[in-house]
This record gives sequence, structure tokens and C-alpha cells, in this order.
Amino acid sequence: MKKVVVLGTGLTPFGELWDLSLRDLARDVSLAAIADSNLEIKDIDAVFVANMLGSKTAGQSHLGSLVCSELGLDADSTRIEAACASGGLAVLRARESIQSGRFKKVLVVGVEKMSDLSGSEISSALMEAADEEWEVPYGATFAGLYALIARCYMEKYNIEEKHLALVSVKNHYHASLNSSAHFQQEISVEDVLKSAPVASPLKLLDCSPISDGAAAVVLAKDSSYKSKEDAVYILGSGASSDTLALSERNSFTSLPAVQKAALKAYKEAGLSPKDINLAEVHDCFSIAEVLAMEDLGFYEKGKAHLALEEKETYLDGKLPINTSGGLKGCGHPVGATGVKQIVEIVTQLRGLADKRQVKKADIGLTHNVGGTGATSVIHILGRK
Amino acid sequence: MKKVVVLGTGLTPFGELWDLSLRDLARDVSLAAIADSNLEIKDIDAVFVANMLGSKTAGQSHLGSLVCSELGLDADSTRIEAACASGGLAVLRARESIQSGRFKKVLVVGVEKMSDLSGSEISSALMEAADEEWEVPYGATFAGLYALIARCYMEKYNIEEKHLALVSVKNHYHASLNSSAHFQQEISVEDVLKSAPVASPLKLLDCSPISDGAAAVVLAKDSSYKSKEDAVYILGSGASSDTLALSERNSFTSLPAVQKAALKAYKEAGLSPKDINLAEVHDCFSIAEVLAMEDLGFYEKGKAHLALEEKETYLDGKLPINTSGGLKGCGHPVGATGVKQIVEIVTQLRGLADKRQVKKADIGLTHNVGGTGATSVIHILGRK
Repeated sequence: MKKVVVLGTGLTPFGELWDLSLRDLARDVSLAAIADSNLEIKDIDAVFVANMLGSKTAGQSHLGSLVCSELGLDADSTRIEAACASGGLAVLRARESIQSGRFKKVLVVGVEKMSDLSGSEISSALMEAADEEWEVPYGATFAGLYALIARCYMEKYNIEEKHLALVSVKNHYHASLNSSAHFQQEISVEDVLKSAPVASPLKLLDCSPISDGAAAVVLAKDSSYKSKEDAVYILGSGASSDTLALSERNSFTSLPAVQKAALKAYKEAGLSPKDINLAEVHDCFSIAEVLAMEDLGFYEKGKAHLALEEKETYLDGKLPINTSGGLKGCGHPVGATGVKQIVEIVTQLRGLADKRQVKKADIGLTHNVGGTGATSVIHILGRK
Repeated sequence: MKKVVVLGTGLTPFGELWDLSLRDLARDVSLAAIADSNLEIKDIDAVFVANMLGSKTAGQSHLGSLVCSELGLDADSTRIEAACASGGLAVLRARESIQSGRFKKVLVVGVEKMSDLSGSEISSALMEAADEEWEVPYGATFAGLYALIARCYMEKYNIEEKHLALVSVKNHYHASLNSSAHFQQEISVEDVLKSAPVASPLKLLDCSPISDGAAAVVLAKDSSYKSKEDAVYILGSGASSDTLALSERNSFTSLPAVQKAALKAYKEAGLSPKDINLAEVHDCFSIAEVLAMEDLGFYEKGKAHLALEEKETYLDGKLPINTSGGLKGCGHPVGATGVKQIVEIVTQLRGLADKRQVKKADIGLTHNVGGTGATSVIHILGRK
């Protein structure tokens, strides 16, 4: 399969953006990505829009056409939805559409406008990502489901809440260096441990926030890239599924869909975990980053907490993870998240990450998860 | 681009299916399509699910994973949404995924469970396909928007309500020969003209119903097909967008997205309108079939009603249209419709359409529309 190049990127600030609507965010970020690609709107052959909640938050589905409509474009357009993995999956489907030979230049927009609903409304809407028949009626929430995962993991590998807290502390530190991040302040382990319980052992500061925001990339066939200087390619991609309901899994201490998706991506890229210089992983809850560190093959099972203690995943560490601030620090507008991960890796690989620039940034990985691992999408990007 | 073969199909009855849930429909139709393809579940590399309303009707998004979960499959899975064009678009994206070389065998499921909501709830939910900012707040409904189209068309080409009624009469006749159809009874022009006004000039029997149902196909690389005897290929496909709001269009008497999508499909297939033996078109309202007959290049603008009067589009006519009964007669579970159109054409091309079999069925076309033509997807299928 052909490599695909990222021609340009766009990103809105993440946060509570009261004066911007779903369509404002989608339009603004599209224009930014097209401009960054040195293209005109009419150059775009197809549009893929990643969004989960537009139906509930804005009464608006049919977002592929909405984006085309806002851009004055008559392109082939598609909305992709796989809960919080919508963004990564849209990038995969868009990449495939270029690899098939159908399109030359494709715009991928990830967008979510969450702050228009109340906290309880949005929590309820998010549960559409879980199993409506076997989880929702029993009162499950995502914090509750990830708390079960955390509890099992902590028991099995004998780690404590303070280890989980290290994820949030690191990601807030990275976010403090990212002007687009939802949160700009550092926090301490003590802050996390003292924050309000949400679903024990997870506390408020173990949980990613409700954010508005949008991210976009323009993908193209290799040959259409004009300046080879800062070209970033998607070298490999993979996606996999698992049971929608957590209760149907044999184990809670790893996510098989992540392991399978990663194997596909590593295989296509001809790379292994040790080749990865930095990664953006799906830390919807602190425990999720711990699982990711292991399921992606970076650390042995049960050992990720040691790397956290050693600060190996800080931006100046051996394997920087979530330099954007991750979902916890940068924010988690669900449809946008998977695309934002790509934007962050591209920014790092181009050496444009400013205060949070990683020194050796040649190969980066993104890890996007839907539900409790019912969908996982992995991309590997590089400068060659 | 490589041709792609339809290995097998599945179809549930369309109608008010009180004892089947969204997941029941999706699972049953998937198993039917996999069995018809002489495959086992584990042979499926990827799943594409077309669905518009699961969020509102079942509180369930993340349907790619849901289908995998029901099948016990860990495949790459994606939900595709483009309002009522979701099904055709899912087939296009699935075809592309095979053409890219990523997958060999892909399951496409179109599913919608609409009867769980009240009439007013479902009408409101369907408006998510329209422009939430520029149409919905002004009280627009789809019947109302298509009534504007009908009024303009009738004025411009001097046709009457009785001409529109001919569409419904034909499609009910075809549906009466299709045991899977929502409606099994024939109706007369007088029945249509006397039916309750919905949005003048459209009356109840000009409008497609609210249906439950599911359709599925398994697509594969040419080479993986074992029996060449009844192979049906997708020869060409195209999709295009237009403004989400009808009010932003220059003309109401044709749908440019349909014309552009059709051009792409004809070009890829190396065929022209005169090569098409039969078509399934998106008759969400009777006027929509009239526009389709012209926008697809079958008839000159303003002349479709003459063909209707001459019964040219009956199953024994020159160009049979909607032998399944169309959206009006067979039913319109929105996510399923575009996939059902493919199922009907494949069934006809294989000579398995029983009482409604078209004599010369070598090349067929499907025409799927989202909103008032904001998305259009065309496929051309053939036996070579």
C-alpha cells in the first residue's frame, strides 16, 4: 500500500468555547488546514468528518455535507463515527481512500462541541459509546467502567493510586507548554489524590475533561507534496474491535483491540515498538495511559508505573508520551481527539512544537480508543 | 481502480418489526449475508455499518463495534453516516477499502430501527439530516422541503399531481411482488390523490414510510470469488455533496449532487445512461423519483412524466425503476436503504428476483440521496 503524506494541519484551541458552534469549529479548522497545505478549497477531492455527538449536542447529523456546505465545496463527503476513536478512524479511512486511487487530496476534520449540554446530559450522551443493552441500564458510566479496569490492574500488579496520578501530573505539565490546551496549569500528585472521588479509585484529576474543539489534516498522495523538506508520512495504520461491553472480556488489565491494531500498524510500517520516538495515547482516564504504555509494546505488563516514576515519558525522557497534554491536559472533544493526536505528532516531527519540542522526533505513534477498548486505531508517522 | 465483487447479500423484511431491536436486525442480516457468501464469520476483515438514527432511537452509537461484538469478530469496524445516503456511502467506502489493498472481504451492514419512536419524534430526529441552523428553526420538514421542490418542478414543466402519483402506484405494484416489502398492496392514482395532504402538493401516498429493516452485502476482491457463475461486480461509483440547506441552491428542479455523482460513476464504469438496464432510485417522495429519472441522464429534463404515463419504468418496461418497490413501497429504514438498493440490483442481476424478475438485467444502477440532495451516491453494477 502506498504511503500517504500529511500536507497540512489545523487546530482550534481546546476548552470551553462558548462563542463557537459545531459548524464554526469545523469550518475554521478546515480553512486552517487547507491554508497550511498551501491549497485552495477547490483542490480538496473528499472530506471525512469525525464526530460522535452532533446529533445530541446540536441536533445536527450529516456533517460531511455540513462541512462541504460551509466550504462551498461539492466533494465526496463522509461522517465517520466510532465513539472516541472517530478521529483516528477517519484518518485511516481517508488514507485508504487515497491508497485506493480514488482521491488525491483529502480533508479530515475531527470536531466536537460538548459544552452546550449540562454535565449530566453529556455523560448520558457519551454512554452511547458503551453497550446500551448490557451496560447502560445497570448504571454504568465510563468513569465507573475504567474504575473497574483500574481496580483490577492495581490488584494484579500491586500499584497504588499515586502511580496513576503521575499520568495526570505529566500531562498537565505538557499541557502547560501548549497554548492550545484546555488546561494550562501544572498539578501535583497531591492535587490528584485530594481531588473529588468520581468512581473509586479514579478521582476528578484522573479523568479527562469535557471539551470543545476541532482538529484537521489534509492528506495527499506522496507525489502531490510540493516541498519535501517537512513532509510527514503515515507509514502504517491499524484498527481492531472488541466486545462493546466490558463484562464480556476475559481480562480487564489489557485491551486486546489495542494490541491487535498496533500489530497491524507496526507490520505495515515495518517498525517495532523500539523504533517509536514519541506517542500520543488515549488517556481518557489515567489508567488508560498505563494500559497503552504496555499494550503498545513500549513496556512489559505491570511495569509501566516504573517508567512513570522515572519520568521516562516526559518530553525530555526516553519515550515522550502525550506532549500535547493528552486527553487529560489538552482536552477531549471526542470527535477531534484522534485527529489532534495526528496534528501533534506532525507538529513534533516538523520541529514546530516550540516549548514542548521533543529532541529526537523522527517516528511518532498515535493511539485512539473508543469505549472501553471496543475500537482501537493506531497510526505510525515518520519523516521519510 | 480494481473492480470489486459482491460475494453475497442479506435482507430482513422491511416494515414495523416490533419484536426485533437495532442489534437483532444488524446481527441477523450480517449472518445472512455471510452465509450467502459461503464464508465463515472469521473470514471478514472489516465491517462498515450504515446507520443514521441509532443515537436517538436506541441510545446506541459505536455501531461498528456493536456489530463486531454481536458476531464475535475483532475486525476493523466503522460506522458511516450521511443521513439517508449512509448505506450507499458505506458501500462506496467499503469498496474503496478493498481497492486500497487493505482488506480482502468486507461486510457492509445498513440498519435502522425507527418504529420505537413516535411519529413526531422520528420526524424531528430525521431533521438532523437538514440544516439545523438555517432550516430546522423555521419549521421545515422533509415533506415540506420536497414539496417546495415539487411545486417548482410542476410550475416549470407544467405537470400535475397525478403524474407524481404514478410513481407511487408503480412502486406499490412492484412492492406487491416483493415479500420483503413494507407494503404488499397495490394502490391507484385516485388513492394517492385522495390521501391526506402532508405538505401540498405532496400527500400521504407520495411519501415513503417510517420503516425498520436491515440489508447487508459482503464485498471482496475479484479473485476471492469462488463461483464465477453469478458474480456481480461494482463497476463504478461516485459521490458528491451540495449545500445542506435547500435555500442556498440556485435551482430546485434538479439535484446537482446527483448529476455529479452519476458522472463519476459512469466514467469509472466506462458506461453511459443508455447502458443501464434497471435502477433503484431514492424515491423518498414521489417527486424525488421524477428528478432522479432526469438527473441520472435517463430522460430529458421535464420529460420524465411522459415515461411514467407510458409505464416505461415498470418491471416489464424499457427501463425498470425500483423493482424492489423503492422507498415508497419497500420501505425506508434510512441507514438500510442504500444497501438494500445494492441487494435488489444484485438479486436482479443474478436472476433471483422471482415474480419481479426483469428480463434483461445485465447492468443496474443505484441512486441514494441524503437530505434534499446534500449528499448523493451512485453505484453501477454488472455481470462481467
